[in-house]
Amino acid sequence: MTPIKELSDGNEFIGFYLIKESEIKQTNTTPPKDFMNLTLADASGQVPAKLWDASESDKEQFKALTLVKVQGQAQLYRDKLQVKINRIRKATDADGVSLTDFVRAAPAEPAALVARIQETKDGIADADIRTIVAYCLDKAGDRLLHAPAAKSHHHAYYAGLAYHIARMLELGEFICRQRPFLNADLVKAGIILHDIAKPEEMVSELGIVSDYSQTGKLIGHISLASLWIAEAAFMSGIPADSERVLALQHLVLSHHNLGEWGSPVQPQIAEAVALHYIDSLDAKLQMIEDALDATASHEAWTPPVRGLENKAFYRMKL
Amino acid sequence: MTPIKELSDGNEFIGFYLIKESEIKQTNTTPPKDFMNLTLADASGQVPAKLWDASESDKEQFKALTLVKVQGQAQLYRDKLQVKINRIRKATDADGVSLTDFVRAAPAEPAALVARIQETKDGIADADIRTIVAYCLDKAGDRLLHAPAAKSHHHAYYAGLAYHIARMLELGEFICRQRPFLNADLVKAGIILHDIAKPEEMVSELGIVSDYSQTGKLIGHISLASLWIAEAAFMSGIPADSERVLALQHLVLSHHNLGEWGSPVQPQIAEAVALHYIDSLDAKLQMIEDALDATASHEAWTPPVRGLENKAFYRMKL
Amino acid sequence: MTPIKELSDGNEFIGFYLIKESEIKQTNTTPPKDFMNLTLADASGQVPAKLWDASESDKEQFKALTLVKVQGQAQLYRDKLQVKINRIRKATDADGVSLTDFVRAAPAEPAALVARIQETKDGIADADIRTIVAYCLDKAGDRLLHAPAAKSHHHAYYAGLAYHIARMLELGEFICRQRPFLNADLVKAGIILHDIAKPEEMVSELGIVSDYSQTGKLIGHISLASLWIAEAAFMSGIPADSERVLALQHLVLSHHNLGEWGSPVQPQIAEAVALHYIDSLDAKLQMIEDALDATASHEAWTPPVRGLENKAFYRMKL
Amino acid sequence: MTPIKELSDGNEFIGFYLIKESEIKQTNTTPPKDFMNLTLADASGQVPAKLWDASESDKEQFKALTLVKVQGQAQLYRDKLQVKINRIRKATDADGVSLTDFVRAAPAEPAALVARIQETKDGIADADIRTIVAYCLDKAGDRLLHAPAAKSHHHAYYAGLAYHIARMLELGEFICRQRPFLNADLVKAGIILHDIAKPEEMVSELGIVSDYSQTGKLIGHISLASLWIAEAAFMSGIPADSERVLALQHLVLSHHNLGEWGSPVQPQIAEAVALHYIDSLDAKLQMIEDALDATASHEAWTPPVRGLENKAFYRMKL
Amino acid sequence: MTPIKELSDGNEFIGFYLIKESEIKQTNTTPPKDFMNLTLADASGQVPAKLWDASESDKEQFKALTLVKVQGQAQLYRDKLQVKINRIRKATDADGVSLTDFVRAAPAEPAALVARIQETKDGIADADIRTIVAYCLDKAGDRLLHAPAAKSHHHAYYAGLAYHIARMLELGEFICRQRPFLNADLVKAGIILHDIAKPEEMVSELGIVSDYSQTGKLIGHISLASLWIAEAAFMSGIPADSERVLALQHLVLSHHNLGEWGSPVQPQIAEAVALHYIDSLDAKLQMIEDALDATASHEAWTPPVRGLENKAFYRMKL
Amino acid sequence: MTPIKELSDGNEFIGFYLIKESEIKQTNTTPPKDFMNLTLADASGQVPAKLWDASESDKEQFKALTLVKVQGQAQLYRDKLQVKINRIRKATDADGVSLTDFVRAAPAEPAALVARIQETKDGIADADIRTIVAYCLDKAGDRLLHAPAAKSHHHAYYAGLAYHIARMLELGEFICRQRPFLNADLVKAGIILHDIAKPEEMVSELGIVSDYSQTGKLIGHISLASLWIAEAAFMSGIPADSERVLALQHLVLSHHNLGEWGSPVQPQIAEAVALHYIDSLDAKLQMIEDALDATASHEAWTPPVRGLENKAFYRMKL
Repeated sequence: MTPIKELSDGNEFIGFYLIKESEIKQTNTTPPKDFMNLTLADASGQVPAKLWDASESDKEQFKALTLVKVQGQAQLYRDKLQVKINRIRKATDADGVSLTDFVRAAPAEPAALVARIQETKDGIADADIRTIVAYCLDKAGDRLLHAPAAKSHHHAYYAGLAYHIARMLELGEFICRQRPFLNADLVKAGIILHDIAKPEEMVSELGIVSDYSQTGKLIGHISLASLWIAEAAFMSGIPADSERVLALQHLVLSHHNLGEWGSPVQPQIAEAVALHYIDSLDAKLQMIEDALDATASHEAWTPPVRGLENKAFYRMKL
Repeated sequence: MTPIKELSDGNEFIGFYLIKESEIKQTNTTPPKDFMNLTLADASGQVPAKLWDASESDKEQFKALTLVKVQGQAQLYRDKLQVKINRIRKATDADGVSLTDFVRAAPAEPAALVARIQETKDGIADADIRTIVAYCLDKAGDRLLHAPAAKSHHHAYYAGLAYHIARMLELGEFICRQRPFLNADLVKAGIILHDIAKPEEMVSELGIVSDYSQTGKLIGHISLASLWIAEAAFMSGIPADSERVLALQHLVLSHHNLGEWGSPVQPQIAEAVALHYIDSLDAKLQMIEDALDATASHEAWTPPVRGLENKAFYRMKL
Repeated sequence: MTPIKELSDGNEFIGFYLIKESEIKQTNTTPPKDFMNLTLADASGQVPAKLWDASESDKEQFKALTLVKVQGQAQLYRDKLQVKINRIRKATDADGVSLTDFVRAAPAEPAALVARIQETKDGIADADIRTIVAYCLDKAGDRLLHAPAAKSHHHAYYAGLAYHIARMLELGEFICRQRPFLNADLVKAGIILHDIAKPEEMVSELGIVSDYSQTGKLIGHISLASLWIAEAAFMSGIPADSERVLALQHLVLSHHNLGEWGSPVQPQIAEAVALHYIDSLDAKLQMIEDALDATASHEAWTPPVRGLENKAFYRMKL
Repeated sequence: MTPIKELSDGNEFIGFYLIKESEIKQTNTTPPKDFMNLTLADASGQVPAKLWDASESDKEQFKALTLVKVQGQAQLYRDKLQVKINRIRKATDADGVSLTDFVRAAPAEPAALVARIQETKDGIADADIRTIVAYCLDKAGDRLLHAPAAKSHHHAYYAGLAYHIARMLELGEFICRQRPFLNADLVKAGIILHDIAKPEEMVSELGIVSDYSQTGKLIGHISLASLWIAEAAFMSGIPADSERVLALQHLVLSHHNLGEWGSPVQPQIAEAVALHYIDSLDAKLQMIEDALDATASHEAWTPPVRGLENKAFYRMKL
Repeated sequence: MTPIKELSDGNEFIGFYLIKESEIKQTNTTPPKDFMNLTLADASGQVPAKLWDASESDKEQFKALTLVKVQGQAQLYRDKLQVKINRIRKATDADGVSLTDFVRAAPAEPAALVARIQETKDGIADADIRTIVAYCLDKAGDRLLHAPAAKSHHHAYYAGLAYHIARMLELGEFICRQRPFLNADLVKAGIILHDIAKPEEMVSELGIVSDYSQTGKLIGHISLASLWIAEAAFMSGIPADSERVLALQHLVLSHHNLGEWGSPVQPQIAEAVALHYIDSLDAKLQMIEDALDATASHEAWTPPVRGLENKAFYRMKL
Repeated sequence: MTPIKELSDGNEFIGFYLIKESEIKQTNTTPPKDFMNLTLADASGQVPAKLWDASESDKEQFKALTLVKVQGQAQLYRDKLQVKINRIRKATDADGVSLTDFVRAAPAEPAALVARIQETKDGIADADIRTIVAYCLDKAGDRLLHAPAAKSHHHAYYAGLAYHIARMLELGEFICRQRPFLNADLVKAGIILHDIAKPEEMVSELGIVSDYSQTGKLIGHISLASLWIAEAAFMSGIPADSERVLALQHLVLSHHNLGEWGSPVQPQIAEAVALHYIDSLDAKLQMIEDALDATASHEAWTPPVRGLENKAFYRMKL
């Protein structure tokens, strides 16, 4: 079975795929005929597909988030690959395939990632900081087991957010060992909290973001996280103007570094600068790693990566 | 008695002034002598002054925020006017002068301004919005009677903030009458709340800002106001995710319009756009009015105004 | 009859519409067949439409600016709504419909708007300023009864320009009452003149701009208005270098505020700053009001508004 | 006699200089003494100077634009050279020195430059364009014999404007021969007219700009030139909307290329692009040539040149 | 035979054209049919074309860079012209047409251009500079006879690079005569070397760039040229740190003027500033000349020109 | 002995210091007297100082880079601290103080840092890459034992460059372990080479940069490093167009990420992105660590840090 990212112009193929999006359309012929625009996906990528002459039964069966078996042909259309479906049917239990195998996901167990994050939280020495982080983790709750870190920018997949946090924690711990003047509690707390309100900013299922929430658009995850911290302090009897609360608010509010990138204040404590660059380093390298993974192995260059000045990346042959 | 803004090179003058800043220095002669650098102020402006050969008694008496009677001479030094003090003494009760006459202040009674704001708040139809606004006004408390709206940018004087809010309310009410599709409650609430946390962002006395507070630097008044609204909702049992709370947060967070001007989100409801432009219109016109007021009447041009692309303004002779 | 803005995917409908644009095309079949691409419009919005298998008579009849009765079906095509026309005929006198009912127009009588503007002009106290404003209004002439204020940015409809001016005058008069240091004659004159050359910058019919004129592209409405003022002064025997002429030129030239927005000089009199912000406030709020009006009532968000940082706007449910 | 640009720290010198600026100041000693701050200039540059213990006669004699003989000493003060004057007297007829020898001037006879420009004007083939150019040259009149091209940016000296125009004409004629598709009449006219209103924008004497004029600040030389062209057309009976008038207006209005550089429209005819780059090329190279000339011969680097990204320039030793 | 740039909607035509690009596609009908998307070109421009119902023989014959005789019809499709091919055959010797007649090319003989460049190189007085320039010209070699100066920006055609260099040399020699303080050797060398590595940066055939090379993307032509100069110096025994080598490196590295335009250092010698503006002047005027040439003679405006702020250009009717 | 960073207004102190800069000046009194402006430094910071009434012997003795014993008084002058020297003498052997104790230096042994770098180089698996890195390290030579990483931006002290490289290597090795898809040889080589030409770009002694070199200004360290790599490849018989050489050039050229920050190409391989962010992270955190170290312990805020948006940093009291 060919992974989607390896399809190229002219390929005929058979395989199981997830229908990620589905819509019914009519041709402009007389009389008009119904056809379907589907988006087929597997863990390696996604591709648009056409199902011509769709029957009533087709329209009934092939809805979004359905697993199907497809026999089709890949074709270039206006420089983009698209699939013409010749045969299609719903997957059955007998096929032994499972939905989550067809979703792009972080390369680690969600539960293990969250456990790793909880463990780091438990290791925070300062009681107030630990309490606030714990409160916010609770508030994010189970959403952390599947939420992506972004709609499309980076870590845009199942458990992408937890993976992003867990990897940043590794890096943060290294930096704190290298530079003891940094307050390790603040670095850890900043990493765990910086994107903690993302599951409230975006509406997602299976790691796929369908839209930003009302709250997400009008408030944004940065201010939301700052409100969560205030709530945590209040609920735990920690004074709103304590240096600890101030520091956590500042870490979260400043982590995008510049006003034009969404931060209402700029970093003014060392840990906030560390947080911003640890975040950038992890997000940017992940974007490239993911772009290279999603690029067919015979291609030397990835498509342009939006989060990296829209540059394509080269696969060195060293 | 010559108002400070009318002093020019060579003028000899006598008058009462407020010492706004005061420091003791030593000359580089052998033996060194003590002298004082004072900033003299009245309601029309301020000017640096030198008191040479300062005695112990001088150093004791002439501290900041003291009222004094001065006989001196104005001189240009590196294109700036400065005063050489010939005689100086503290003002006494017999002089019949009062501190607040020498402070730059809004051209309206602080108490009347605050009453006007309270009245507008009482006129808000929606109970939840009114409750939140009332809570935040209480939290600002008496500080509203004297706090300036900024360190130097605009309305930087005694009760400048209350004056700014009161005048914006007049404009806002006009706009709401002109455009009934706007929600007048939100416009009023947005105007009252937009800068409500400024007294916590800046440390001021008599309308003179000495510095930004720790909290002011690390959190900023925009995010602070959003935290106050959250607190108000919580304390009043209004759900944190109600459309009203969301709207008030959004108004406050977006009122600087762009990320590079400090807003973490951009206006996405009509009232937020109205708020931003009402704020700009009032602040910009006040800057010019104040700059013209502070410019000697024989001058055709003001000094450059920082908040207006650093342009000087012309006094038309129409 | 369904207003265009309420059409959605799958709707079948019958109604009268204006053909705003019309072109004849050929299919790529053998033999090729003619079809027509029409843009159907009513006062609520516009939508592209296809008339397949167009006959010679169809091609003859269905030209731009024709009123027609249409029976058709709305369909989503690449996320945009488009109409498939099943039946179409020209409207007749018997139908009792009139062209101007189908054109987007300012919500006020053009003649009343122009009368309002003339009246304000008559109220200008300074004779020279009044003379110049009168001359320029004459030069704009009847075009003011229908010209839009822009191609698509804001007030882009029948009599949009007069409406924009009239509403700005209301706001300007309020501001002058609130801030007596402003010269009301200059504020009024600036508002009337600021966009007065727009009808020469753009080629429009029924408030619909088809293109910018040669002069519009090479000179622009800002410099054009400044040339009109010079001509007015010359024709009326007012010295070209009088303070009044200078002030009016300055108001017009600086009203876009910044060089990158098209102003060759920046505001340097108080009235010019007032003019710029009054213009912004009216234009921006109108954009949102129009965007909300053009959005189907069941939608919570407008499409992105180009003149407002391309943000979508939310219809609060308060 | 040492040219000013060759003075360095510690030099004692005697020579004739022009007093470019003069002001009287008082020391802060008791009793205070008068001293004078002078700016001494010659054709090679200028330097600030102090005359301590100034007598009444000194204050009477040593005003701006006076020629004097000075014996003094150059000293570094805060990294800038300044002169301590030991002896000073007014120059007399017997000294045989003349004011214009001490003023920075274009390296060509003003009358010859203006004659060259007039000659080019006479060579314009199109009668209307020639008439308009002639009118504007008349309006600039004798000011062209001495006006500088800028306050300090480039060609900031006696007859700098005429020199700039004349050299651009040489370059323009070359380009027109190289690229016959360009309309040579428009290129010549554009070059002569592009800065023709500069003498009205700035107040200058002997090529030294003391300030921008009121008109210069509020209208700017670009719009002024466009008004002159309109006046020329009107006075000569050439229709205001003729393609020729339009083209000349466009050349002048667009010659700064971008809005942020002061042009309300961008170049949209080939000759306007040519004009912009001919202007840049001449201005930029002149800045460097002048900066190298004003740099002491033993220095390898000029001071930073503001009009060239504030870069210093290197004198190659080839 | 109609030149491509003169085709308009509805034209039926017969003529010889070059197939610049060719691809085979399938219709979405059942059963699918093959058709071909071709790009037809001649020296005046290019146009997309459809060959429906393509036979096996068609697919075999009509590959890229083939000369064909076509009978077809031009049609507007989504505002762009496209051709429907009715008949097509390969050109034969009997037709007497030659490939190079159908390629856009500089309006001068490539060999003559290169000879002109070599001659200028021979005229460089300084032996070291001449040696380095000669080495780099050798390295570019025969590619100079056909390489374009850019992919699409300017001089994007057969021998465009040599033409660009040759014309810049004419301009450079004029400037050096006008301003003798410039080092003519450096100006000439800078002009010849500034884009000398472009043939290595881009992959081209017949002046048509198919892509940037790996080296072009990762190093860029500016740094490449600097490496060539270093190699030339090394191979010729000229010290790497000689003032001459330094100057040539600097000219090449700084010729894009600003960091955001690709130059790692900014011009700091007069000749580098001259080079940048000579380059701009030649490239920009050529863009307009080419855009006007490629615009049908009845059109007053060119399409937007990307390298000139995306402005359209007007063909004056003087 | 008070470290310089702990001095405050009014302190009288005795201690040993390094004279970093020294100049002789004259007072404006009659007769003038000589005095000296010195910059006193120790490992904690530096401060300007005045030595009034300087004798001939003083002027002879107290030159730059001399160790002295000073008794003086600290005073605020225009908000900056300055020292008035009461007594001063040269340090003698008997004092037991050594020059390098008074110079700001990296907190590690230079020799150990260089050994660490050499060791990493030896661990590069790819022979060609190792050879090129070794060649460039040899070319930098002993300068690596003392060169700073910048004039003032970051790591601006003795052995600052080696320290910067060594710490980046630690971070780079961590990242390569965390993300095995990165080529560790390239990351290591990129880190060692990225600033390797800095000692040629700047003229420094004891880690103090006096100026940029001619070559530094005209070529810049980024292009210089790329020339070194080319030379290394040539000398070692490695083809100039091998993928390894290309990769190393690309790493060096792109490491400033954006054109406006000096990189002629943007990162297009994963290792280049890693290099850029590792560089930023190390430089930014070091700036803050150094700023906090240089701030008196009783101060909560550092002075503004130029390389971090000119923000001051807060010393949390956690």
